[in-house]
Amino acid sequence: MPKTYVDLETLKYILYDIHKLEDLLTRERFKEHDLESLDLFIDSVKEFSDRELYPYFKEMDETPAYHKDGTVIVHKQVQKVMHQSGEMGIIAACFDYEDGGLQIPFSALQAAVYIMDAANNHLPGYPSLTQGAAELIVEFGTDALKETYISKMLSGVWGGTMCLTEPQAGSSLSDITTKATPTKDGFYKISGQKIFISGGDHQFAENIVHLVLARIEGAPKGTKGISLFVVPKNRQQEDGTLTYNDVMTVADFQKMGQKGYCTTHLGFGDTDDCRGWLVGEEHKGLNQMFLMMNGARIAVGRGAAAIAMAAYRTSLQYANERPQGRKLSADGKKNPTEKQSLIIEHPDVRRMLLLQKSIVEGSLSLVMLASKYQDILSTAASKEEKEKYHLLLEMIIPIVKTYPSEAGAESVDNGLQVLGGYGFCTDFSLQQYYRDIRISALYEGTTGIQSQDLLGRKVPMQHGKALELLVAEIMQTIISASSDDELKAYATTLGNKLQLSQKVLGHLMPFAMKGNHERYLADANLFMEYMSIVVLGWLWLEMAVDAKNELKNGNRKYSETFYESKIHTMKFYFKYEVPKTISLAESLMNDEVITIKKDKEYII
Amino acid sequence: MPKTYVDLETLKYILYDIHKLEDLLTRERFKEHDLESLDLFIDSVKEFSDRELYPYFKEMDETPAYHKDGTVIVHKQVQKVMHQSGEMGIIAACFDYEDGGLQIPFSALQAAVYIMDAANNHLPGYPSLTQGAAELIVEFGTDALKETYISKMLSGVWGGTMCLTEPQAGSSLSDITTKATPTKDGFYKISGQKIFISGGDHQFAENIVHLVLARIEGAPKGTKGISLFVVPKNRQQEDGTLTYNDVMTVADFQKMGQKGYCTTHLGFGDTDDCRGWLVGEEHKGLNQMFLMMNGARIAVGRGAAAIAMAAYRTSLQYANERPQGRKLSADGKKNPTEKQSLIIEHPDVRRMLLLQKSIVEGSLSLVMLASKYQDILSTAASKEEKEKYHLLLEMIIPIVKTYPSEAGAESVDNGLQVLGGYGFCTDFSLQQYYRDIRISALYEGTTGIQSQDLLGRKVPMQHGKALELLVAEIMQTIISASSDDELKAYATTLGNKLQLSQKVLGHLMPFAMKGNHERYLADANLFMEYMSIVVLGWLWLEMAVDAKNELKNGNRKYSETFYESKIHTMKFYFKYEVPKTISLAESLMNDEVITIKKDKEYII
Repeated sequence: MPKTYVDLETLKYILYDIHKLEDLLTRERFKEHDLESLDLFIDSVKEFSDRELYPYFKEMDETPAYHKDGTVIVHKQVQKVMHQSGEMGIIAACFDYEDGGLQIPFSALQAAVYIMDAANNHLPGYPSLTQGAAELIVEFGTDALKETYISKMLSGVWGGTMCLTEPQAGSSLSDITTKATPTKDGFYKISGQKIFISGGDHQFAENIVHLVLARIEGAPKGTKGISLFVVPKNRQQEDGTLTYNDVMTVADFQKMGQKGYCTTHLGFGDTDDCRGWLVGEEHKGLNQMFLMMNGARIAVGRGAAAIAMAAYRTSLQYANERPQGRKLSADGKKNPTEKQSLIIEHPDVRRMLLLQKSIVEGSLSLVMLASKYQDILSTAASKEEKEKYHLLLEMIIPIVKTYPSEAGAESVDNGLQVLGGYGFCTDFSLQQYYRDIRISALYEGTTGIQSQDLLGRKVPMQHGKALELLVAEIMQTIISASSDDELKAYATTLGNKLQLSQKVLGHLMPFAMKGNHERYLADANLFMEYMSIVVLGWLWLEMAVDAKNELKNGNRKYSETFYESKIHTMKFYFKYEVPKTISLAESLMNDEVITIKKDKEYII
Repeated sequence: MPKTYVDLETLKYILYDIHKLEDLLTRERFKEHDLESLDLFIDSVKEFSDRELYPYFKEMDETPAYHKDGTVIVHKQVQKVMHQSGEMGIIAACFDYEDGGLQIPFSALQAAVYIMDAANNHLPGYPSLTQGAAELIVEFGTDALKETYISKMLSGVWGGTMCLTEPQAGSSLSDITTKATPTKDGFYKISGQKIFISGGDHQFAENIVHLVLARIEGAPKGTKGISLFVVPKNRQQEDGTLTYNDVMTVADFQKMGQKGYCTTHLGFGDTDDCRGWLVGEEHKGLNQMFLMMNGARIAVGRGAAAIAMAAYRTSLQYANERPQGRKLSADGKKNPTEKQSLIIEHPDVRRMLLLQKSIVEGSLSLVMLASKYQDILSTAASKEEKEKYHLLLEMIIPIVKTYPSEAGAESVDNGLQVLGGYGFCTDFSLQQYYRDIRISALYEGTTGIQSQDLLGRKVPMQHGKALELLVAEIMQTIISASSDDELKAYATTLGNKLQLSQKVLGHLMPFAMKGNHERYLADANLFMEYMSIVVLGWLWLEMAVDAKNELKNGNRKYSETFYESKIHTMKFYFKYEVPKTISLAESLMNDEVITIKKDKEYII
């Protein structure tokens, strides 16, 4: 096993120095924390991950979760990690003190869970989803619901899930048919099928608390008739004991990767004895769920960024140890009597490593940026601040979900290639990262759905205000970079890319205004790719500006090479990735209509 | 299981109508064949694939080959397919009549084996490598060697392999250390380790004939001291019986995909009783092996193109059957009371399907082009023709190996995405295609090696003559297309891309001329991508020209929709793929040096 799965130094640099965690700590909510205590928290999660997650990474792939006798059998570490995540306050980290939480900044928690993801991506979903489900109950649930569920969930004794998808309703949630029938006893009878439910059941769970989207009888069709329910696997009786709540585990989907993280098919109300309790208002379920969905989408991006990090570290180590081939001499030949080079000395291998580094660390910075927006939003002092960070967060969410998933997969693909034939062999972990990360572009809204969200909802939001705010943030970095002789050229390039994006939007907008939304959104995926590159270019330029400043500073925290490597990777990104915007813009502004269905069917 | 894994109509269209197999049949070597008999041959291989390959595709993934008691245990279909490939003449197809062959055009055989690859890529390697090994013996071996091995191999009774890689020598073959010690009895004693040997052993093989690269004692260092040997697993004794030849099966590599095609580790001469027979001249082994390597590289491209085809057909069928979501109406909303659309009606799904179609059918045309060049070369009537097609083939080989492998993987990735969450589940085959195809970019020279071959060897070949010939071929299509009003614009675009490639080379060449080969080749991968897009753009334009002509023809072979779909896919390729050349050219002509190692180490 490789020595390292995460670059802790870079993680802390991005969290502390780039996104300035310390600035958040002046806020009332976080005033009992300081950088030292949060640093200790992160280190303790690293130590926990070294001990309880990383050693089981391969084993969990080789012994997938499976369905047996009405339950799902998972690896024993699921129990360990759930319990310890409770004990260490990982599940409770961001909750209010009064709910049993620790009021730790969301960014600090994300940094910690990122380490867990990198160590073993099959495990963190169990506590993470529990946290998300508990959040919904805290946010919208009655005191009675909070009383029953929260402490058990935050301590990791009970698990939690989100139940959205049904066999006929995946991307299209308006087609949910799971039924909720009111009773006079304050609960609803739930019946229906839910599929793809992560962490939906396992042999160690005393109870699992499902947050279920369902339709109250007589509710309007579409997304406006969906309500949210708490539906536990086992319900508490008056004497405090648990009884089976008619939530049947029908199956566990077998997957190409992330095999230790179970994906279940659940049947609710098979014997008409499944009780659910309404969370929040009737018919507002989807909006409520989507509040949590922002967190879930950041989590998917974080997980993908972390898998790509682990893959990068592994291929980097291999490249530093594997001799193969030789440097070309002036006649274009190689001298076979010379010692072999390490493969890290070959330009093409360096290109693959730098591509990984630029994607991996850029994605990490993006995840931390979204987390920071979330923290500022949740502690906003003024209406203006709240509005601003709400919009910035909304704007960045589809990108933070998508870029680490898509580019992260490409990054792992390059990592695998660095190992040559060995990369394809199960003796090495690259092939597992390659399989595991592939789910990220599907989870919690596919790339297609995210791209339509970006171009169809976020760009037009409040007449373009969200985009305007993001552009203003980017401009600040462009201005800082412009005052540096070395960085000026990159700043100019990034500015040009912003302008070109305006031109692209100027080309597309008229279709939306004329009511041709299908046309407006047809190439939303390309626009997503365009904007992602711009945002990543920005985050790399921001890192380069900081690194340049620190290099002038006699009292710097990290080595010269550390800062130089950040500047160098920014240059890589601008040479190899940023130019992709040109071809994307060309495709986006090409007026041929190719992908919209006409009367004739051309795909055969 | 989906109904279809290959689009036979398109395969035949590309073989017969685009690459005009019939024109080859006038040549002396093929004169006993006509289109009808070859068509029957292809149909019989399709029927064979339906019956003996496709039904075992999933099963072979689920029951991988494994090492046990000194041999490798493979799926029972390996025996069936080896024997029937012998009986049906698939192994012998291209050999001379006098060697027991059928003198079938190489292109026709490739079309047939493409069907086998698409049906079940775990199986065709067994007969294919046997054919390749036999080819080497026929081409360079003594009559005695031919006598001993060829009929057994062509009939599929004995298997064959190519043994190049050693633990310390993968991409760098000059580091091969397997030793050959001459004896006075006409054979050599072989000792050494070979790894990644496909089809290297299995329980059904009465014998396996290894074609082994080794170094005769005292040979010069480097690639100029490598010789080629026949080293059977069991050697024939004077009485005709077989005795163990000290070729030990040490292990079988476990892989992420293509699990039914075994990948062995062989030890030669563990008890000093391993005999090898020299093939061809001493120290010429690598050149001899590379003659066969062209075929092997076409085979890798063919296999990848075929896997991508199967994945495309599967995702296309899914998209035609799966309802999900609705069309956007003029207010940008969806009406939930409307029936769900089939997902093939969504522009983003159509984009993914058309991307697949353009890569899949374009790759197929590329494989058939290379195969045609091979046929013309092997039957060239004049020195000029031979020289021309030798150069064209050399030029196209790294591209036919690489494009279907790299773009094919992207195509399968899009196919998986079309299925949403189901794409990641083992109940559907997309995830298996996704894993299986990934080996293609590693086999027989990685993409990095191919790109260096293209830019470092093929482009400069005979002062650029090979590239010049290829450009001349492309220009012919540009000229034909230019006379059509609809196609003219695409022809102009392709011409511009050719010009831009010249500009890129004009930028890079001076580095080579000044002896800075490392710099010249540093971005060879990007140049590969550039040239691949140009070649594919050409092949699509060629198809569109033909389709346009046929549409004017009252007596056309295929439906109007068939031809229209080809033109439409060409337009897709020009809108979405061809523009990538602009950003590639920008990166290639950017003078920042980022990936060449300097004194300081920036990758950390």
